Amino acid sequence: MRHLNQESFKIEGPVLPKYCKIVLQPSGRRGTFPCETNLLTAALELGEPIESLCGGKGSCGKCMVFINKGIENISDLTDIEKQILTEQEISQHYRLACMTKAIGDVEVTVPEESRRREQVILTEGRKTDFTIDPTVKKYFLTIPLPSLEDLLADQERLAKILAQTHGLENLTIDFPLVKRLPKLLRENKGKIAVTVWNDQEIIDIEPENASKSYGLAIDIGTTTVVVYLLELDTGNLIGIESMTNPQVTFGEDIISRISYVINNLDGLQRLGDIIVTGINSLIEQLAKKHKIDYNQIVEVTIVGNSVMHHLFLKITPEFIGRSPFVPVTHNSMTLKARDVGITVNPSGYVHMLPIEAGFVGADNVGVLIATEIYKSPDVSLVIDIGTNGELVLGNNEKLFSVSTAAGPALEGAHIKFGMRAAAGAIERVKIDETFEPKYKTIGDEKPRGICGSGIIDIIAELFRVGIIEKNGRFADLDTPRLRRNNKVNEYILEWASEAAINSDIVITQKDVREVQLAKGAMYAGAVILMNKFGCTKLDRIMLAGAFGNYIDKKSGMLIGLYPDCDLENVVSIGNAAGEGAIMALLSKEKRGEAMRIARSVQYVELTLEEDFEPEFMNAMYFPHRTDDFPHLKEILD
Amino acid sequence: MRHLNQESFKIEGPVLPKYCKIVLQPSGRRGTFPCETNLLTAALELGEPIESLCGGKGSCGKCMVFINKGIENISDLTDIEKQILTEQEISQHYRLACMTKAIGDVEVTVPEESRRREQVILTEGRKTDFTIDPTVKKYFLTIPLPSLEDLLADQERLAKILAQTHGLENLTIDFPLVKRLPKLLRENKGKIAVTVWNDQEIIDIEPENASKSYGLAIDIGTTTVVVYLLELDTGNLIGIESMTNPQVTFGEDIISRISYVINNLDGLQRLGDIIVTGINSLIEQLAKKHKIDYNQIVEVTIVGNSVMHHLFLKITPEFIGRSPFVPVTHNSMTLKARDVGITVNPSGYVHMLPIEAGFVGADNVGVLIATEIYKSPDVSLVIDIGTNGELVLGNNEKLFSVSTAAGPALEGAHIKFGMRAAAGAIERVKIDETFEPKYKTIGDEKPRGICGSGIIDIIAELFRVGIIEKNGRFADLDTPRLRRNNKVNEYILEWASEAAINSDIVITQKDVREVQLAKGAMYAGAVILMNKFGCTKLDRIMLAGAFGNYIDKKSGMLIGLYPDCDLENVVSIGNAAGEGAIMALLSKEKRGEAMRIARSVQYVELTLEEDFEPEFMNAMYFPHRTDDFPHLKEILD
Repeated sequence: MRHLNQESFKIEGPVLPKYCKIVLQPSGRRGTFPCETNLLTAALELGEPIESLCGGKGSCGKCMVFINKGIENISDLTDIEKQILTEQEISQHYRLACMTKAIGDVEVTVPEESRRREQVILTEGRKTDFTIDPTVKKYFLTIPLPSLEDLLADQERLAKILAQTHGLENLTIDFPLVKRLPKLLRENKGKIAVTVWNDQEIIDIEPENASKSYGLAIDIGTTTVVVYLLELDTGNLIGIESMTNPQVTFGEDIISRISYVINNLDGLQRLGDIIVTGINSLIEQLAKKHKIDYNQIVEVTIVGNSVMHHLFLKITPEFIGRSPFVPVTHNSMTLKARDVGITVNPSGYVHMLPIEAGFVGADNVGVLIATEIYKSPDVSLVIDIGTNGELVLGNNEKLFSVSTAAGPALEGAHIKFGMRAAAGAIERVKIDETFEPKYKTIGDEKPRGICGSGIIDIIAELFRVGIIEKNGRFADLDTPRLRRNNKVNEYILEWASEAAINSDIVITQKDVREVQLAKGAMYAGAVILMNKFGCTKLDRIMLAGAFGNYIDKKSGMLIGLYPDCDLENVVSIGNAAGEGAIMALLSKEKRGEAMRIARSVQYVELTLEEDFEPEFMNAMYFPHRTDDFPHLKEILD
Repeated sequence: MRHLNQESFKIEGPVLPKYCKIVLQPSGRRGTFPCETNLLTAALELGEPIESLCGGKGSCGKCMVFINKGIENISDLTDIEKQILTEQEISQHYRLACMTKAIGDVEVTVPEESRRREQVILTEGRKTDFTIDPTVKKYFLTIPLPSLEDLLADQERLAKILAQTHGLENLTIDFPLVKRLPKLLRENKGKIAVTVWNDQEIIDIEPENASKSYGLAIDIGTTTVVVYLLELDTGNLIGIESMTNPQVTFGEDIISRISYVINNLDGLQRLGDIIVTGINSLIEQLAKKHKIDYNQIVEVTIVGNSVMHHLFLKITPEFIGRSPFVPVTHNSMTLKARDVGITVNPSGYVHMLPIEAGFVGADNVGVLIATEIYKSPDVSLVIDIGTNGELVLGNNEKLFSVSTAAGPALEGAHIKFGMRAAAGAIERVKIDETFEPKYKTIGDEKPRGICGSGIIDIIAELFRVGIIEKNGRFADLDTPRLRRNNKVNEYILEWASEAAINSDIVITQKDVREVQLAKGAMYAGAVILMNKFGCTKLDRIMLAGAFGNYIDKKSGMLIGLYPDCDLENVVSIGNAAGEGAIMALLSKEKRGEAMRIARSVQYVELTLEEDFEPEFMNAMYFPHRTDDFPHLKEILD
């Protein structure tokens, strides 16, 4: 119970507290700041990347946030905000972060579209320029109405003008539009707008004052679903919405979702329905927020791993999960939106990017067209660590891919104090020569557990200072940080007294073994690919996905998660899969590239590789039993 | 009240009546026959064409009929019938007409498929041979299952085998089938049957013991809808079902249905729904009767006039009914069955034959590909008299078409005692030199009115014997058959005392004028077409449709319904539109022909023709004001 001191009783009227707590959602980052700190400053200090093009002057309107709790604890609405925000936004407690000061504890939600989109790191040899040339285009036409001298039927009349004015021949027209054509033509005296898909099919007809066409790029991850809304003719990103994949309730990883489908008669239907419904709710939010009609959204591209791809289409993933692990289809699929159940223009198309093989799905194809490693003579290794790990290696001559069940341990699963990257998770660790640790938690809270990047750091540091040996075993050292518990050695990272949980936070010998297995599989996969390719060193390593964004590259190399490489050429490339989906939406050329590349990647089935077993055994060592790491020479010596 | 005589009281036990009345449905033909007459004999005597390949021996099973009323008045089931009929058919009162005797009054339904299909009359220059080569074909495949050495996905695996074994490259697969593919392949160890549409798309996959594929040819008439069920690989006609077009309730002719659509907000929806539902009920009957699953029906072709075409697809016919009378589309349309709502295999296609122009619709295109007048150097005139009259004239060099609002009067509408061709309708008339008529009614019943062929006969006879003059006026003759009633002259065909109705049956001056208007328009249309073509005589006249089947060719020429021609070359061609739909179903070549021919016919808009008015005035005369009729010389002199 809290004691109120005498002094505070004496003061009349409300007391302005000197410090206030600011919590940011959905990241969970939080901190205590002097009162009157503006929310933008606080967010930046907490490492939350809020967009602010005008530098905090209130003129760009990009830093819009939403006050969850403590609406009474913020400064009054400024005149600038009254100009920028709509009445509805104001009534819903939207504010500009740069104009709003905390004068008490507040909880603030940073909407996805206010979050700064981190620029994908561009390195030499990587070129992401592409010409905006979407599959769907809109034409404005004037069509002479029929007369007794000109008896051509409406549809052929439209076709004739499209051919004459734009050279578009032999177009088909989506059947439901035929029904709208006669009245639309006559009511608008022949002046209409026509939306054409792939120079092949008319997919919308509107009066000539028709608005712009939009498209969606969707990344269906095992854990997270992201929907990007783009303006098709300019390529402008209009909005982003994301959510936890609602299938998570039926199984956290791919394998458990496949099991759910196999073990439940209506499993496929349920998992399929729930993801389609989820995506539709994100589309509804985007449409509402950006005031567009869902009929204006005429094209959708989708990436996801093979299982997410199949579940979305209600195709059983059963045989991806069983030897010989083949998907039902490799090719890209282009389906009418109405047949898939996505609530956009029903005549529009949903384009599923192609699948490489087995678990190496359309998400990986998205990564490839975003990184364009197939355009450079340099040999690149792309590592996409999500719920499982996919590797692609190659250059402009050849490409090889492999899938390893490496992910879960590296994301915190099967680790005693493993947790997801949320407030209180240890994300960075240093251990000094006295074996004492220093760490940083997300939101600078008391520690609750260790997230993926923290686990990599700990193992790397334990190895660097000699607490664990090259083979992964704990050394016999005299330090209070090491102890034997239930016959298992463990290193104490934090004592219960300092933790947010009622237990010491430790890393056990078993945890180390889990990481060894995971990283060993990844490394061995990379070696197999290098052997197939015929190279002994890598010019570049690209880390894709959320995990790749947060990992310390040096720690990753130190534990031997990937082979030696100049650390400057180990780069994080963010959500490259989503970026690939956007490119395929905006560029016919990139879409064509996706189909060619997916077919040219040679998939290597690890279970068939005789070398895998010995490579895997060697790769269990830190960083490796025999391989050299010239770029870590200083540390390793 | 009926008196019972003493004699009949004296006889003990039931008395076998000496004569019994037999009524045939749906034709309404009826007659009285000696008891123990078998139903096949009775039907043939009544002019009902029942199929009987075995000559009444009970072995072919083709003469199956259904006892409506008087089930107690027929002979017992024979052993032969017990062999041929199923238990279900027996319980539903089906019998073989040749094996069944009437022993009292009975009413019998002759199902469409037991009715003898009258051979379309073949004349020299008309060739209806075509190779059966349907758009849809079924292939039986053995597909090796995937293994660790062969990781191709299911869909590409299927594509590879289709290419290797049948040279079918780049096939797409209808999306819902992708979902069935993985289990079907594995459960059947790779042995499956694949149905391919137009060498382009896989529209069904089944286990290798799959049954045959079927197709439907549908003729949507303004008054009657006919559905033909055919086996696709053999072309065998399996069954026929027909019904009155249920749209009749909303308007008897095309114009009143267009008005209904314009004047009722949900009019289009209602007229569209009711015809689709009607067709589906016919399909259900066919599927049930012939024990096939509706999924086995994989292709449908449809003919109908432009308005029936539009209403079926729920496309507004408003602008066909308004100057300049253009349809929404000319081209053939190929639509997924599921998008049209027809209950066949949802992945199958519905092919709408192309429309020529205005009212000259897909039915006329059907007539053209059935008659093939475009293959002969002879000049043919095809007259399709339904609810309105369509004319096509031409040969292998050029073709012209025209539409006239000629139909209704010739079908009995607007005629004082006009009626449809049902029991009691006067269908044949002769008038002798004393001006006394002889006539025949359908079913030999007492007369109730006059149907189309009867009207043509009466006018022709009145003209031949001089009761009406060349200009259509009644002559001033002294005969009790002629009288003036309410200031209108009329000819008495039958006195009320002999009629089944309480009135004299007459033909009035106004009736004659109606026929003059109708036949004048038809004739003038033909002359305009001959002028366009540049010919002065016709090699052949073909009369299509039900009306064309019953009309007396000489009477038709005598009233000047069509120009002079050798009467031997005036032929009835039956439901050529339906025949065309069948051909388009069974032959890719004929389907292609339909598209080319529809585009090559030059449509002539009568309202734009300066010559039409004077030609029409001249054509109002019997047979014509100035034209010669060498083939009627004997009669006209």
